[in-house]
Amino acid sequence: METENNSKFPKLVIIGGGFGGIELAKHLDDKPVDIIMLDKHNYHTFQPLLYQVATGGLEADSIAFPLRKIFEGQKNFRFRIAEVTKIRPGDNSIDTTIGEIKYDYLVIATGSTTNFFGNKQIEHFSMPMKSIPEALNLRSMILQNLEEAILQNGKEAREPYMNFVVVGAGPTGVELSGAIAELRNHILHKDYPELNKDEMKVYLVEGLPKVLQVMSEQASSKSTEFLKEIGVEVLTNVTVKDYDGKEIKLGDGKSIKTHNVIWSAGVMGQVIDGLPKEGIVKGNRIQTDEINRVNGQTNIFAIGDVAAIITPDTPKGHPGVAQVAIQQGTHLAKNLIKIIDGQPAEPFKYNDKGSLATIGRNKAVADIGKIRFQGFFAWLVWMFVHLISLAGFRNRVVVFINWIGSYFSYNGGTRLIIRKFIREEIVATEHLPKAND
Amino acid sequence: METENNSKFPKLVIIGGGFGGIELAKHLDDKPVDIIMLDKHNYHTFQPLLYQVATGGLEADSIAFPLRKIFEGQKNFRFRIAEVTKIRPGDNSIDTTIGEIKYDYLVIATGSTTNFFGNKQIEHFSMPMKSIPEALNLRSMILQNLEEAILQNGKEAREPYMNFVVVGAGPTGVELSGAIAELRNHILHKDYPELNKDEMKVYLVEGLPKVLQVMSEQASSKSTEFLKEIGVEVLTNVTVKDYDGKEIKLGDGKSIKTHNVIWSAGVMGQVIDGLPKEGIVKGNRIQTDEINRVNGQTNIFAIGDVAAIITPDTPKGHPGVAQVAIQQGTHLAKNLIKIIDGQPAEPFKYNDKGSLATIGRNKAVADIGKIRFQGFFAWLVWMFVHLISLAGFRNRVVVFINWIGSYFSYNGGTRLIIRKFIREEIVATEHLPKAND
Repeated sequence: METENNSKFPKLVIIGGGFGGIELAKHLDDKPVDIIMLDKHNYHTFQPLLYQVATGGLEADSIAFPLRKIFEGQKNFRFRIAEVTKIRPGDNSIDTTIGEIKYDYLVIATGSTTNFFGNKQIEHFSMPMKSIPEALNLRSMILQNLEEAILQNGKEAREPYMNFVVVGAGPTGVELSGAIAELRNHILHKDYPELNKDEMKVYLVEGLPKVLQVMSEQASSKSTEFLKEIGVEVLTNVTVKDYDGKEIKLGDGKSIKTHNVIWSAGVMGQVIDGLPKEGIVKGNRIQTDEINRVNGQTNIFAIGDVAAIITPDTPKGHPGVAQVAIQQGTHLAKNLIKIIDGQPAEPFKYNDKGSLATIGRNKAVADIGKIRFQGFFAWLVWMFVHLISLAGFRNRVVVFINWIGSYFSYNGGTRLIIRKFIREEIVATEHLPKAND
Repeated sequence: METENNSKFPKLVIIGGGFGGIELAKHLDDKPVDIIMLDKHNYHTFQPLLYQVATGGLEADSIAFPLRKIFEGQKNFRFRIAEVTKIRPGDNSIDTTIGEIKYDYLVIATGSTTNFFGNKQIEHFSMPMKSIPEALNLRSMILQNLEEAILQNGKEAREPYMNFVVVGAGPTGVELSGAIAELRNHILHKDYPELNKDEMKVYLVEGLPKVLQVMSEQASSKSTEFLKEIGVEVLTNVTVKDYDGKEIKLGDGKSIKTHNVIWSAGVMGQVIDGLPKEGIVKGNRIQTDEINRVNGQTNIFAIGDVAAIITPDTPKGHPGVAQVAIQQGTHLAKNLIKIIDGQPAEPFKYNDKGSLATIGRNKAVADIGKIRFQGFFAWLVWMFVHLISLAGFRNRVVVFINWIGSYFSYNGGTRLIIRKFIREEIVATEHLPKAND
């Protein structure tokens, strides 16, 4: 099989084409390793903008980049579409959907997936948003439920179709609830003149006392203010008890009738079978040492969301954000060269460049070093940072045009139902065509 | 139900949001009719560019336009996502997936679908390309089969994955086979350095003696020349006998091993149940009089691909092209106002503005009136005409940037597998998730 090593260099297998895997492979260009990257998709997803795909602001193609194209011309790089089913550390091999693959070095960069904390009922009925197919499904659900709302007789019948509940007020939940509220504020009366704007409600439910827990106090309070300004009902200190596809039951005894529940309340590492269970720590992450080497292994590494470097400074590991994955990928590239050369590796040090979250059409909150600022200027910074981040990829111009267009017209994006969302009896992720994942 | 008439004006139901339906509804803006348009998709598809979506040159969103957005602000217009299951002329009503809808005037503008001429085996195994989901499926199939080719051992094993057969050399077949050949010529070595360009073959199979039968002799011979220049093997006077998902059997006794057969050899009208069978003519089209009124009906009309105005001048009806649909839609709008006012309607006259077909990256053939020209200038005209046609819609700038980018880099587009194509035992459209249609 073509994945066999026919190079004189050690063979490095990277599982996952996310931020970490890409940086790692890029920084090994022209280096004496033979790289093979595996991913179940043929593209990299620029996850920070997924919420814009879900709300019709950007096209999927604008934030997804074919992995083969990213590595065009890199001679020591090969890509295969494959899912890895098992790691066999003893054999230096992995089982995949395209057969067994041997490695000299293995890097697990599989990222994270939605964590429903074991609640099967919620998992079944609510919508996650961690991938392009999921974002497109979510977009279809939102638009189809507005179409359904039009067909209902009376306010009460429309209610479950027009109530939107986002669970979890991390950056994703904040950005998504803001975008849905802007859809109501600026698009609804144009696209759906039959519907009354005031009947559409957007709730953001958070179990902790505040939104954007990971950011500063200022960012948290200002973002709450911005969210309220654009009409998001922010419910903090409120947990979710259950959801049956029709009504979400909250910890404070209240409930909301809704067919639209979006779950952004947690993530967990996407661990592959085969590593010792005791090495899996909180959040389903793989514990590693300070050079991202999996505990107890010599030639297996883990980076990004799926990895946790646990030290007294980072008792829970680093935060599961793109910056950490990017820096670990870059750092591990240098270390792998050292290890191959027989030199000592250097511990990873995270350089926190700060956090940004955008709220609605033209506001954001920013914590950069000790500087905290919020509002329109923070939004300009947010836009600039994201356009720069897209620099390595195509489509920056297209994204920019879309954003400028949306900004001035309040009406960008194309609200297409391309992947039709299937409502049988109930709203359920299980009913979505699995084939497209 | 919300679709009930609560206007004092006569209620016009338009089935289908294609070129004909859109023009009709647009030209009735501010006129004394109450319009309701039904379509199974929430968007209009700009079909002439579907082949670019299928080959990764354009994003689906660039050629699909939400119907609600097209009619934003048109007060006498309503839209519903629905499929029509039956027409009941006696009751002035239709059965739909969202319930019964009454009409005063009904216009059938359902367009056409792929015609497999009753060959279930070919229908099962080959890929059509008449809608956005079909174009995306086709794109996924092409890319996935190239990925599969990499995993094969030896030339013979790769062959069925790397042979591409387009059946039918009308404009769609010519444009599509050209685009696949350009993918091989300019993209393959970059995206798939593991594959040998010479192993990838593109065949265009046509039962008639020449390609582009509907165009001039010059257009036909020049397009054949252009196709051969970019490496399409043009097989004319060759019919298709059968296809089992692995090997296509041709009428000349030869056969080609391939998992990639694209069927663009025929279309047929998408007729809805309920009209008298004797009114359905060749090509599954609904026969109408010269004002597009369905034979034997007083208040039911048909326009575009699904309609056939049969006169001594047009014994087979007008050609099934966008121009006819657009002109019939515009014309019927005027006639409907006259009919409502009790004035005599005027017969439809087709103003043939000419035909264009593009071959590969920068060539085209054009028949405009008595003027025939081919090559780069024809391609510039083609590009200009298509950009102008997109003028009524969004995304013209984005399409233009993509085209210019592709032209200079030979490497535009994003080759994403978003809707994964499912190969079970065999290649089959039936295995595609129906849910997404």
